[in-house]
Amino acid sequence: MALVTDFAEIVGAKHVLTGADVARWSQDWTGKYSAAPGLVLRPASTQEVSRILTLANARGLSITPVSGHTGLVGGTYAPDGILLSLDRMNTIHEVSATARTATVDAGVILSNLHDAAEAEGLIFPLTFGAKGSAMIGGVMSTNAGGSNVLRYGNTRDLVLGLEAVLADGRVVNLMSALHKDNSGLNLRHLLIGAEGTLGIITRAVLKLHPKPRAYATAMVAVPSLQDALDLLNVLQDASGGEVEAFEYMPRHYIDMHLSRINGAREPFDAPHEINIMVEVATTTERDITELLENVLARRLEEGTLRDAVIAQNEAQRREMWERREAAAEISFWRTPLVDTDVALPLDRMPDFFTRANAAVTTLDPQAEPFYIAHLGDGNAHYSVYPSRDDADLHDRIIEAVEDIVADLGGSFSAEHGVGLSKLNTMRRRKDPVALDMMRKIKAVLDPAGILNPGKTIPD
Amino acid sequence: MALVTDFAEIVGAKHVLTGADVARWSQDWTGKYSAAPGLVLRPASTQEVSRILTLANARGLSITPVSGHTGLVGGTYAPDGILLSLDRMNTIHEVSATARTATVDAGVILSNLHDAAEAEGLIFPLTFGAKGSAMIGGVMSTNAGGSNVLRYGNTRDLVLGLEAVLADGRVVNLMSALHKDNSGLNLRHLLIGAEGTLGIITRAVLKLHPKPRAYATAMVAVPSLQDALDLLNVLQDASGGEVEAFEYMPRHYIDMHLSRINGAREPFDAPHEINIMVEVATTTERDITELLENVLARRLEEGTLRDAVIAQNEAQRREMWERREAAAEISFWRTPLVDTDVALPLDRMPDFFTRANAAVTTLDPQAEPFYIAHLGDGNAHYSVYPSRDDADLHDRIIEAVEDIVADLGGSFSAEHGVGLSKLNTMRRRKDPVALDMMRKIKAVLDPAGILNPGKTIPD
Ligand SMILES: Cc1cc2nc3c(=O)[nH]c(=O)nc-3n(C[C@H](O)[C@H](O)[C@H](O)COP(=O)(O)OP(=O)(O)OC[C@H]3O[C@@H](n4cnc5c(N)ncnc54)[C@H](O)[C@@H]3O)c2cc1C
Ligand SMILES: Cc1cc2nc3c(=O)[nH]c(=O)nc-3n(C[C@H](O)[C@H](O)[C@H](O)COP(=O)(O)OP(=O)(O)OC[C@H]3O[C@@H](n4cnc5c(N)ncnc54)[C@H](O)[C@@H]3O)c2cc1C
Repeated sequence: MALVTDFAEIVGAKHVLTGADVARWSQDWTGKYSAAPGLVLRPASTQEVSRILTLANARGLSITPVSGHTGLVGGTYAPDGILLSLDRMNTIHEVSATARTATVDAGVILSNLHDAAEAEGLIFPLTFGAKGSAMIGGVMSTNAGGSNVLRYGNTRDLVLGLEAVLADGRVVNLMSALHKDNSGLNLRHLLIGAEGTLGIITRAVLKLHPKPRAYATAMVAVPSLQDALDLLNVLQDASGGEVEAFEYMPRHYIDMHLSRINGAREPFDAPHEINIMVEVATTTERDITELLENVLARRLEEGTLRDAVIAQNEAQRREMWERREAAAEISFWRTPLVDTDVALPLDRMPDFFTRANAAVTTLDPQAEPFYIAHLGDGNAHYSVYPSRDDADLHDRIIEAVEDIVADLGGSFSAEHGVGLSKLNTMRRRKDPVALDMMRKIKAVLDPAGILNPGKTIPD
Repeated sequence: MALVTDFAEIVGAKHVLTGADVARWSQDWTGKYSAAPGLVLRPASTQEVSRILTLANARGLSITPVSGHTGLVGGTYAPDGILLSLDRMNTIHEVSATARTATVDAGVILSNLHDAAEAEGLIFPLTFGAKGSAMIGGVMSTNAGGSNVLRYGNTRDLVLGLEAVLADGRVVNLMSALHKDNSGLNLRHLLIGAEGTLGIITRAVLKLHPKPRAYATAMVAVPSLQDALDLLNVLQDASGGEVEAFEYMPRHYIDMHLSRINGAREPFDAPHEINIMVEVATTTERDITELLENVLARRLEEGTLRDAVIAQNEAQRREMWERREAAAEISFWRTPLVDTDVALPLDRMPDFFTRANAAVTTLDPQAEPFYIAHLGDGNAHYSVYPSRDDADLHDRIIEAVEDIVADLGGSFSAEHGVGLSKLNTMRRRKDPVALDMMRKIKAVLDPAGILNPGKTIPD
């Protein structure tokens, strides 16, 4: 195949994969999108990425970038297509303790960056269940969230600069390490979260934070979600905004976790309906555990808290985190599954669950709602196991949930992105003028439409 | 004039200003850009803005939006042109204490928003000298910074949602109040900082923060800038990131302040070379003044601090802030003036001043450098009073300073934006591929080129 030879010339024959060698990329993490790509290219440098795109653009060949392949919305689905994998571009170029920045290639695995930062007494705070596979370029392209957004922001808040290759092979250099830079239109934020539709991210300058001296981590049970939200505000004010995670796990999640995960344990002596994992962390010298204990003790007295267990050591803390981080794994275990990733104004969260559960039950009385939430961010992963594998029913469930989200001023896509799985929803729900702007920007930056076509921006 | 009649039909005859009525918009704040616009339109609603742009677009008429008219880079300069003033769109629609958000029109004056937030026990932290005139739409369009960026970020970090009118009159609705929203390309960040070249911002949802219970504000004198930067890190770690302002005022600034401002006082008993205004603030119950005192006492002992005065009451705190906020006024007082607004990696700041002063002195031995800095953000307003009014000399001074900035990995534009005054620099210094992307985006979203033409994005 002439094409294979041409690409081999750029990346080396060994790094143009076909046939059985592409198996690793033939099935996505969710299991929903399975199809072998025709070709996987594994460039080793920005220049190779640039040459690949120059060639592809000239011939009108579609290219889909792939990093850790852990995305949850089918963004890397490319049956018979060409995947460009960043996995060989995995150098951490610099971790600067004084500037508190890291300069990395796009293919660096998130947990490797965590380790490199920790070695300098710093943290890269972004974290979630797939941290051992997800790569910086993928994380940036989906503007991933996770469990520390409350304190440190989404991915885009942690990126100071980046480099990307455009559809025509040109390299745009935005590798700034600055905290202020108002020099024209903000292209960095345009490329972050673009899911590979505007360019291929090859390098980044990331913001690091000081490593907290101490963590206080607890599981708490509360009478109502409103009590949980009140607790969050009290804790934020008492700690000066040092709450790092505030994660909601309802009873059905704990049950599923107990039944699915080896060695899983009930968080409390008695089972509770509304369980929250909370973590506070500080770089200061004050006793953060005492602070947390005091707040919780007061609320136990008031009756706005039912139970609380504070992690006494790192092992107990890890157990709490692992319970939360198993969420994606647990929810995708069972099929059929209708999953969503919605954002709501914080004060609408309690209402949302009530209304969504009612709507789902009306449509399918045997359906089982199953959800967890990054409660502090107003972000719910609201899923449903419908009683039967019926595409029409699934659509109606999604529509019903999304109607409620829209009615409450929320968004149908919080942190996982649009990819393929929310393309119809984008078409239906996104402001039509905004959609038109996206299409125009896409058309002018990628006129041949070669970058991850058919994703994110509906025709 | 048919045009006046047509616009009068949209906004009412009273709100189409010509002749003597446009005087207020004929001279910019810096005094550098003076020329009367031909027409000033004062719409009262998004719909009126939309109708104005529809008409202007059809006829190929250029429109320059203006809010508080306090921008420092000539962004609203439109000799004989049409200004669209947002000043009548000045309603604060909602301040929500539970959601910690404000929904406002673009013409709301920054200090009015401060007051409205405070009334609910909250703050909108963005602040700078022009707060009594600058309006939210202008602040968003320049992505303004100021003195609290260190803790709360630039304007873009404080904007959750917005509404804008595009060149063709269509309204794009991105009025989200959410902390996570990954639904396609991020158009919000594209419109923020676009200086009116892509659309006219008409409304916004802004993020509010809890009002600190207590402030500790001090003037400190240090032996070197490196000592200042070390002090910042120590204070950040001790307070858990609660440093709100860290402002550098060198001796020559204090002298100029003393000579120019009525009632101005020397900050210390004896004059010092390197003066820093520092403010720490907390929502927690701990004693932040004691924390600051302890850190400062330790550094006095170590010899890394020369002197310190902590504000004992709100009046003393205000005096410190007013000293800093007079900076723009003081520096634009004298002419000829060569001004810059540059950003540098934090650890390069000391080096920058040394090298810039040397370069300027080489070019013009009688020149007087004059500067202040948002030191905690790596942002210097480095100005020079050259010995003579010679455009060529001024250009060479700017080039020399910018060469040093580029060499140190900085940016020629930190917070004031590009407008007219940095257009040449943009052309010379910005990554050419980035410039090309900006031009393409501009061309496709404003094909007739009617929105603030000739600004920000060089041809
Ligand atoms: C167990 C598990 C838990 C998760 N938890 C969370 C969570 O809590 N919060 C959250 O936000 N997400 C979560 N996710 C999803 C998350 O979005 C992805 O894991 C991650 O952000 C994608 O990284 P990746 O390297 O795997 O990217 P991929 O899956 O390889 O790619 C993702 C998208 O980005 C594009 N892309 C990849 N690399 C580049 C590049 N270099 N340049 C341009 N485009 C590129 C791809 O084409 C695709 O559209 C979870 C996923 C799993 C499997
Ligand atoms: C004394 C003083 C101190 C200052 N200190 C600082 C500081 O510390 N930090 C800092 O960052 N800046 C500072 N500035 C400059 C600052 O950028 C502006 O004051 C402010 O951001 C602009 O607001 P404005 O309402 O006056 O906008 P204008 O000057 O009216 O407009 C600014 C730009 O935005 C465009 N624009 C205005 N409104 C809209 C709209 N609704 N939609 C689209 N485009 C629009 C205009 O066309 C123009 O290009 C200072 C200015 C002064 C005078």
